[in-house]
Amino acid sequence: MSRIDRLRELLEEPLLVTNLVNVLYLTGLDSSNAALLVEPERVRLFTDFRYIETARDLEGVEAVQTKRSLIGWLGENLSGRIGVEANVLPWSFAEQLREGGVELVPRKGLVEQLRAVKDDGELEAFRRACAITDRMFERLTSEARFVGSRELDVAWDIQRIYHEEGAEEPSFEAIVGSGPNGSLPHARSGDRVIEAGELVVIDTGCRVDGYVSDYTRTLATGELDSEMREAYAVVLAAQTAGLDAIRAGESGIDVDAAARDVIEGSDFAGTFGHGLGHGLGLDVHESPRLSTESPDTLAAGNIVTVEPGVYLPGRFGIRIEDDVVVTPEGLENPVRFTKELLTVG
Amino acid sequence: MSRIDRLRELLEEPLLVTNLVNVLYLTGLDSSNAALLVEPERVRLFTDFRYIETARDLEGVEAVQTKRSLIGWLGENLSGRIGVEANVLPWSFAEQLREGGVELVPRKGLVEQLRAVKDDGELEAFRRACAITDRMFERLTSEARFVGSRELDVAWDIQRIYHEEGAEEPSFEAIVGSGPNGSLPHARSGDRVIEAGELVVIDTGCRVDGYVSDYTRTLATGELDSEMREAYAVVLAAQTAGLDAIRAGESGIDVDAAARDVIEGSDFAGTFGHGLGHGLGLDVHESPRLSTESPDTLAAGNIVTVEPGVYLPGRFGIRIEDDVVVTPEGLENPVRFTKELLTVG
Repeated sequence: MSRIDRLRELLEEPLLVTNLVNVLYLTGLDSSNAALLVEPERVRLFTDFRYIETARDLEGVEAVQTKRSLIGWLGENLSGRIGVEANVLPWSFAEQLREGGVELVPRKGLVEQLRAVKDDGELEAFRRACAITDRMFERLTSEARFVGSRELDVAWDIQRIYHEEGAEEPSFEAIVGSGPNGSLPHARSGDRVIEAGELVVIDTGCRVDGYVSDYTRTLATGELDSEMREAYAVVLAAQTAGLDAIRAGESGIDVDAAARDVIEGSDFAGTFGHGLGHGLGLDVHESPRLSTESPDTLAAGNIVTVEPGVYLPGRFGIRIEDDVVVTPEGLENPVRFTKELLTVG
Repeated sequence: MSRIDRLRELLEEPLLVTNLVNVLYLTGLDSSNAALLVEPERVRLFTDFRYIETARDLEGVEAVQTKRSLIGWLGENLSGRIGVEANVLPWSFAEQLREGGVELVPRKGLVEQLRAVKDDGELEAFRRACAITDRMFERLTSEARFVGSRELDVAWDIQRIYHEEGAEEPSFEAIVGSGPNGSLPHARSGDRVIEAGELVVIDTGCRVDGYVSDYTRTLATGELDSEMREAYAVVLAAQTAGLDAIRAGESGIDVDAAARDVIEGSDFAGTFGHGLGHGLGLDVHESPRLSTESPDTLAAGNIVTVEPGVYLPGRFGIRIEDDVVVTPEGLENPVRFTKELLTVG
């Protein structure tokens, strides 16, 4: 059954899809200005001049050319009771549609629910992204110079290797957080020169046929002090516990807790301030979530990250992250790159 | 006067800024999860664990740590009459705030109005982005191999040269549209191998200190037919007419018309299907717009693109684009790379 047909089974009224990644997922159109109206008997793909040629070549949808101000055009041209993606549609766009006479029904996460369970083609693209990420880490840790390089230089090495290995693009700008910068979980790479005897958090992934990987490894640049080594062992134990807890039917809260409890029961209690993981697919952050607040339950075919960390502000950070496919009995972990503490020069 | 103080002069009630580029512009915080509440006597910057350390180091704002679900947290913690950025705030977030007891006032484009007029520091970053883009085009057209290369390979050359020349990153994924692909104004680069005797549209820019450039040049890969040469001359004449029409006080519609009339009066009438240009700054598309539907009037300090094109579906496309600073008398054009029809090998 096509993705659009599976979506139809979830609908109580026609759905106007305005999340552009959802439009891509359902139709194959990668556009910065498009919307899809899924009705029982027809599917219309609205887009402007720039994308209309591509849209017309797609199977199973009627391409309709609109003005550049797409929502204004839809307000003038649609009517009746229509569901919208309320987590995405801007408030003023909702008002424009309503003023045009559309009766709006707020809906949330319908397409995201489909996207969370990957089909074989999606899993295949994901596994290829992982294989390239593995090769990138192998090459980076054997070829690149860390000590004396700026974080930015290492980030560029990562990007260059992805290109050479055939990735479409990096999933996101690589995070290379050295020394105290490692304690900022989402700091970008900067001008800081990496020193000997510190930890370097490297969080990176790549995209293949639309689907992303997202790994983190923390490397040593020489002899570490005993606190750093202990923290590394705690994070690795937490990550292992998190992986062990994964199977279809488990809640995102319970899987998070399995890893979190290891850190909370260690000398590093209170230093793991983010969720354990998130779904991966066309987006780097999608359903399901593994966190203390997650509403999600794992299903076979989900792809999730498992990425506990310990962060000591102003001193160092450690994070270890794999990406796994949820199965009925547990998981498939396509990540091959070692999680032993590697020392690089 | 600070940017936040200038914003205050436009406000009738406190404003909750949720557009993340606007948060960056006003505070310097580059975050994927933040909101700024600007009140007469205080400014609070809300963000989660991941960014709170960085937020606390910023001048002139109180950093407040929230849960990861920022809007839910704000709904529980804010009250009173508050303006929101209705073009950005998702409908469901507006409802969450309202259910929390906030009286919402929809506002549009207040920070964007400030951002449209650049200060000296912003113009300086922009000029440096242009200087690097000029060098990139000089090197690309003298060093790169076009005929026999895939569009993707040329796109990678562009990215590599930006890196070598010191740009932060490309403004966007470079468009390299060869032969018939050139007629799709927003096609990405693909696997197509560039042939001799065709046109190649290259639309690219880079970011320096946050600010972007955005150029287009159309190159020849050998002898062209007379229709192609005529079309190139028409686009160049249209671009010149557009540039000549720019000065503070002119409307976006009139400037667009100055260029459009040249194409409409030629053998290529009806083939220029997008607007003439758009603002540039922290975003690649911002105010003001130059188009047949633009509500904007140019002001000194605006940065705009001027990018007419001719597109013959299935055959070829031509676009020529400079970025200019609007002045009281006309414009400053920092773009140095030639607009003569270049032939590359």
